[in-house]
Amino acid sequence: DVAVRSKSRDANDPFKDEPSRSPLLIPSSQKPFNAEPPVQLLAEKFLTPNDMFFVRNHLPVPCVCLDDYTLDLDLSTGKPSLTYQQLTQNFPKRSVTTTIQCAGNRRSEMVKIKPVKGLNWGSAAISNAKFSGVSLNELLQHYNVNIDTVRAKYIVFEGLDVQPDGSPYGASIPLELARMLKNDIIVAYEMNGEILPRDHGYPLRVIIPGVVGARQVKWLKKIYFSPEESTSHWQRRDYKGFNSSIDWHNVDFDKSVSISQLPVISAICDPVEGTELEPGAEEVTLKGYAWSGGGRGIIRVDVSADGGNTWHEATLKPNGQTPYRSYAWTLWEADIPLPQGQSKTELVVKAVDVSYNVQPDSVAGIWNLRGCLSNAWHRVNVTVPSP
Amino acid sequence: DVAVRSKSRDANDPFKDEPSRSPLLIPSSQKPFNAEPPVQLLAEKFLTPNDMFFVRNHLPVPCVCLDDYTLDLDLSTGKPSLTYQQLTQNFPKRSVTTTIQCAGNRRSEMVKIKPVKGLNWGSAAISNAKFSGVSLNELLQHYNVNIDTVRAKYIVFEGLDVQPDGSPYGASIPLELARMLKNDIIVAYEMNGEILPRDHGYPLRVIIPGVVGARQVKWLKKIYFSPEESTSHWQRRDYKGFNSSIDWHNVDFDKSVSISQLPVISAICDPVEGTELEPGAEEVTLKGYAWSGGGRGIIRVDVSADGGNTWHEATLKPNGQTPYRSYAWTLWEADIPLPQGQSKTELVVKAVDVSYNVQPDSVAGIWNLRGCLSNAWHRVNVTVPSP
Ligand SMILES: [Mo]
Ligand SMILES: [Mo]
Repeated sequence: DVAVRSKSRDANDPFKDEPSRSPLLIPSSQKPFNAEPPVQLLAEKFLTPNDMFFVRNHLPVPCVCLDDYTLDLDLSTGKPSLTYQQLTQNFPKRSVTTTIQCAGNRRSEMVKIKPVKGLNWGSAAISNAKFSGVSLNELLQHYNVNIDTVRAKYIVFEGLDVQPDGSPYGASIPLELARMLKNDIIVAYEMNGEILPRDHGYPLRVIIPGVVGARQVKWLKKIYFSPEESTSHWQRRDYKGFNSSIDWHNVDFDKSVSISQLPVISAICDPVEGTELEPGAEEVTLKGYAWSGGGRGIIRVDVSADGGNTWHEATLKPNGQTPYRSYAWTLWEADIPLPQGQSKTELVVKAVDVSYNVQPDSVAGIWNLRGCLSNAWHRVNVTVPSP
Repeated sequence: DVAVRSKSRDANDPFKDEPSRSPLLIPSSQKPFNAEPPVQLLAEKFLTPNDMFFVRNHLPVPCVCLDDYTLDLDLSTGKPSLTYQQLTQNFPKRSVTTTIQCAGNRRSEMVKIKPVKGLNWGSAAISNAKFSGVSLNELLQHYNVNIDTVRAKYIVFEGLDVQPDGSPYGASIPLELARMLKNDIIVAYEMNGEILPRDHGYPLRVIIPGVVGARQVKWLKKIYFSPEESTSHWQRRDYKGFNSSIDWHNVDFDKSVSISQLPVISAICDPVEGTELEPGAEEVTLKGYAWSGGGRGIIRVDVSADGGNTWHEATLKPNGQTPYRSYAWTLWEADIPLPQGQSKTELVVKAVDVSYNVQPDSVAGIWNLRGCLSNAWHRVNVTVPSP
């Protein structure tokens, strides 16, 4: 593996070996690198091209030499270490097409209510790809571990990305959830048919469809079962929800449940905020995405061109998946009439999933100190010059 | 089985054989009988007593003579008819504690926005009980039918309750959903340890936990697989969601997905709307329920005594179930400070499920022509006289 040289070459800079990135990506931070694609491009393709897939790194990107690399399993039946060669050659290749979303997607809307801690994400900290690799369940079965009978409460994943003190990024999901998803969790070495890019976890990323990105550990190094959650900062002191009366002076992270599956969300990707439509335009074409966690497919997307007074149903583009195992997003499009005689108006979208969960109306009602789970109705203001 | 005599004994009245009912139940219609318990009593008990369990009948209650009764299965391997004796004696007894909710629970709040068609339910068209009976999966396996490989798209249930034209009540769920729930669907003959009451489906009701009540067919007579949904009125022309710009002049029921799993909901059961609190009261004790469909457990309940400006976390009473197979509701309680110097205030509750789905803020945003799925933040206005 050849590390792509970044501009910064200070030998003491932990970020000295970052990969090269598409100049189209819009960074929300440089070190660690976090970036989203232009939101208008996002809704153009069902499968987000690898170099346009949003990047969420918590730490420097590890520079992995395949000769030294192993994936380490700590199991009741032994502690096998698998080489990349063994993983890619000795197991059937399984694929899942899934949307991955950062818990902080659309955080910038929350910031407008009251400041929060976190990257100032727009609406594109979400992307969709086909991941291929080894079935986690088949891997465990190979080592005589039955995930349905393992005595533990969590499955824990550790990455090769490390903090200054040398401790790795880590995350876990409840074993109950891992059992439900056992045929869908994969240890991925491919993304959209290409070798997994460095920014997306090369050589291996665990893909847990329907679950927040933060648990789908990149640069995967170790998997084990535990009676407790990952002890990492990101599992215990981050990625949790709170009500809007909880702020940093009164927060108790131990009292909140870690985010795993995500709620229903949608966004208008085109037009973007502040767009000036054609003078005298009588209708507008909206495009965007809708998605829900837990494999819950999208059954309806409602759009409005008058701030939510009247609604129209968008046309959904089928994602080819079944309603209860629908891990990929649903792209949608709608041509709807504009209110006449107004120089500006607010476009709105809200989606419904197969369990008839809906998005909340307001950002204020779901504001939280970390700015996670920002899934209110999405609003975009546009102007319509006189003809 | 002895039919309890109702007051109306007109031989031509299809409702002449209705069972007797608790006088505490509050009817929303008499023929067919529909009723909810007093909402304050609802939150008192985790298991709703049978005579207080909300009643949702679409048609007259059938008067079933066990000697004549069979449950008929129409399977690829044959058409077995099972007697009550066979069902109750020849299979292991399985139990599930689950909340059942009418799709129209809390409809009366929607009516205030704009009229809808449907029973004017308050907040108590929901109850919780322990149901026991035969596992549907074990029943099918007994007849060599593997639900995972059946060639069909839906599983259909028919009741003994019939329309004037003789056609039965019917409902279906997608086979994909039935497969996910296969270890939890039961053909119940007991409710809270007693013989299933007539109003709740005597002798048999199919229990499909996490799914709307309307699909859990009572007075169960027939089960079969089909390439299409039940053709009943209630499956095809009712129990579907629409946006608030769809009304009877422009509705197309074929375009909407049938309600199966329900979204997250909660309600304040005590105090009730219009309650006059103690003069000069400085705090108030709220009690209520929270529940989500799809087995998604409740992880947080937020309550407010000032119309939603400030929030407090309610204390949840554990339901004894696991987070992803949590079919029973979560009762909760909270003592919270009242805003001082105000003679009236609005109490509010909203809940969060394990997938971090939240309730929508407003009833207006989810209004629909049938008044289903009314799960906005629940608001109760109370007065506080001067001390
Ligand atoms: Mo994230
Ligand atoms: Mo119902």
